[in-house]
Amino acid sequence: MKPVKVGICGLGTVGGGTFNVLTRNAEEIARRAGRRIEVVAIASRHANPACATGEIPLQADVLALARDPEIDIIVELIGGYDTARELVMTAIEQGKHVVTANKALIAVHGNEIFAAAQKKNVVVAFEAAVAGGIPIIKAIREGLAANKINWLAGIINGTGNFIMTEMRDKGRAFAEVLAEAQALGYAEADPTFDVEGIDAAHKLTILASIAYGIPLQFSKAYTEGISKITPDDVQYAEELGYRIKHLGISRRTSAGIELRVHPTLIPASALLANVNGVMNAVVVSGDAVGQTLYYGPGAGAEPTASAVVADIVDVARMLGASADSRVPPLAFQSAELAETPVLPVEAVVSGYYLRLQAVERPGVLAHVTRILGEKGINISAIIQKETREAQVPVIMMTQRVEERMMNEAIREIEALPDILGEVIRIRVDHLAD
Amino acid sequence: MKPVKVGICGLGTVGGGTFNVLTRNAEEIARRAGRRIEVVAIASRHANPACATGEIPLQADVLALARDPEIDIIVELIGGYDTARELVMTAIEQGKHVVTANKALIAVHGNEIFAAAQKKNVVVAFEAAVAGGIPIIKAIREGLAANKINWLAGIINGTGNFIMTEMRDKGRAFAEVLAEAQALGYAEADPTFDVEGIDAAHKLTILASIAYGIPLQFSKAYTEGISKITPDDVQYAEELGYRIKHLGISRRTSAGIELRVHPTLIPASALLANVNGVMNAVVVSGDAVGQTLYYGPGAGAEPTASAVVADIVDVARMLGASADSRVPPLAFQSAELAETPVLPVEAVVSGYYLRLQAVERPGVLAHVTRILGEKGINISAIIQKETREAQVPVIMMTQRVEERMMNEAIREIEALPDILGEVIRIRVDHLAD
Repeated sequence: MKPVKVGICGLGTVGGGTFNVLTRNAEEIARRAGRRIEVVAIASRHANPACATGEIPLQADVLALARDPEIDIIVELIGGYDTARELVMTAIEQGKHVVTANKALIAVHGNEIFAAAQKKNVVVAFEAAVAGGIPIIKAIREGLAANKINWLAGIINGTGNFIMTEMRDKGRAFAEVLAEAQALGYAEADPTFDVEGIDAAHKLTILASIAYGIPLQFSKAYTEGISKITPDDVQYAEELGYRIKHLGISRRTSAGIELRVHPTLIPASALLANVNGVMNAVVVSGDAVGQTLYYGPGAGAEPTASAVVADIVDVARMLGASADSRVPPLAFQSAELAETPVLPVEAVVSGYYLRLQAVERPGVLAHVTRILGEKGINISAIIQKETREAQVPVIMMTQRVEERMMNEAIREIEALPDILGEVIRIRVDHLAD
Repeated sequence: MKPVKVGICGLGTVGGGTFNVLTRNAEEIARRAGRRIEVVAIASRHANPACATGEIPLQADVLALARDPEIDIIVELIGGYDTARELVMTAIEQGKHVVTANKALIAVHGNEIFAAAQKKNVVVAFEAAVAGGIPIIKAIREGLAANKINWLAGIINGTGNFIMTEMRDKGRAFAEVLAEAQALGYAEADPTFDVEGIDAAHKLTILASIAYGIPLQFSKAYTEGISKITPDDVQYAEELGYRIKHLGISRRTSAGIELRVHPTLIPASALLANVNGVMNAVVVSGDAVGQTLYYGPGAGAEPTASAVVADIVDVARMLGASADSRVPPLAFQSAELAETPVLPVEAVVSGYYLRLQAVERPGVLAHVTRILGEKGINISAIIQKETREAQVPVIMMTQRVEERMMNEAIREIEALPDILGEVIRIRVDHLAD
């Protein structure tokens, strides 16, 4: 069969990895795909010393590739919003298929991009946008197509998981580990996207859409970072039989869809609690299959390239096929997307870990438990250790309760004269169906 | 679009589950697939009380369904070799697509079946044949299409994993746990297929073919069961920082492809070591992606149905597409399958756990270590406890060595006058790249 011609836009970490995988494994990929995948043009302002691009023309203008009639598939690996969006929209306009690893672009502009792609009868594939080399988009969109998905929960930011793992393994403080992660190149100079959960929320937004068949709604995702987690919290969680992980969680309830990224206590025996370092993993629960888990490297040149190239192979296979034969971008036919509302975080039902600093005086605990009791909040575990200090930390775990009730209870507890400072609150999830 | 018409052959556990999932999730599935999936006929000698099949005709003759011109897709869920093979070959002959959960059929007759399907330009899909609800076939065949797969290792028999988990958690003996598994319905009255590794070897044969692009070669798979594992071995493994799992392992080496099912010590910290009970998991290592892991229920009515229905949706989507657009059954184009040899187990290189019973007398250990040394086998750990008995168990772990060398060493060790009975030998794998 005729080779498929690819233009790679962006020759940084992922672009370089993609070029190298396509080159090194060209034979193996052709044996699978039944046709060769040829890189015929590259757009990049700089050469990548890790890539022997040989005689392939390197040009600065990405839009020129989008308009090059020789190219079948544009691979967008420049990242960011503006130029990437212009590139993708131009490529679609020119009738080209697009493969992208850009989670921010898809989470924020995906609805518009997919609508344009449908009009021009082209594919926009984005496996690499979530969890790097793990084929999680394909698993949910195709592998679990028989299921009504009930919930999913994932470690979908490697930097955050590296920090949480180091804090637990070595009892280190957040700021210290973050500095190390920056030195190692795991974290950006401005770590906000990673540690405040924005990157994870981009990915969670995409996963929720393909799981439930709803439009992308990044602006409705709740995000809370890990920068306030202390070594004490990590240690208390451990004593209670839990670990703290920075999770993206999306659950379908009768009221709507939860979409939230925050530190979460999960049982130490859960596989997800044992996903360490920069690795990613996603648990998906479907009504027929039950729980399945997908684990692997969530970032890096070649792991991400693995997903990009898998998409290229998929698109290449379907070049001659009709739109009816394609898997829709958000898993459900575009006319069949649901208007199920995304719930505000106040409506989320969750267990809680609470840490409060109390004056060591009789009756304090009675006041706290009375307030919780009045809100219908049951305590499932409590740690208060003997002390000779004037202040004592009290740790409680509660059963599941609506967040607005917990917020009210916390306000009242903080107003007690014998409670010092803020009540620390971390959500708890048992990852149960 | 026109509904797709399905005939279900076999209405037992998986057939019933498939019918129920297709019925219960009909709306959700149609929203995804863009067309309805209709069960128009069922072949079964008995009704299934769990299935409200209503007016759908139930007939005893499966071959009649294969010849029914109304049916687009035959779903083979009767199991076994003979009738299943005839059914599948007849359906193909009649130009129908086939979805099957039958690992034995695919592992043993797959080459012939796929050749016939190619001639008649139909699809034979078999996601449910390996690891139940986990979309592992799709992950390897499509999700990791960019990779040269280096190795894979999996817990792919739930019964065996249930037994190994109970033996470890509760220190129980094999026979006792097996009897319980039979009482619980996890194990068959004749448990040979499960506990001797035959079922796992069927699945491993399939995984290896799609990973490396080689024909199915079940007869060359090495199988060793778990019936000889003792609570002592489980306990010693634990002391050494390992767990014993019944694994299917396939590795691509420069000499050929390893294809083997046997009890294996793996590091206790590996995710795979923490896959418990009847759950399945497969680790796949590719040159670009590194290690990825897929976890979920490996059996049961609806988990298996989840995979069967996903295949039905895939086939339904591609009904109008040309053969060029399809993913080949063994992942690689049929003309591109490789003749890489499957290695005999004597040529496999592995670490070993050895347990020997020695007379408590000076010099015994010196004899044993001399023999190992002469074969170039390095000892990495040893346990010999103080005792007042006349006999003492000695446990050793060795570094990696070719199996034929280890066999020679064991023969010589067993011939030592102070060594009593057989040397117990369990392979060790660090699941490292």
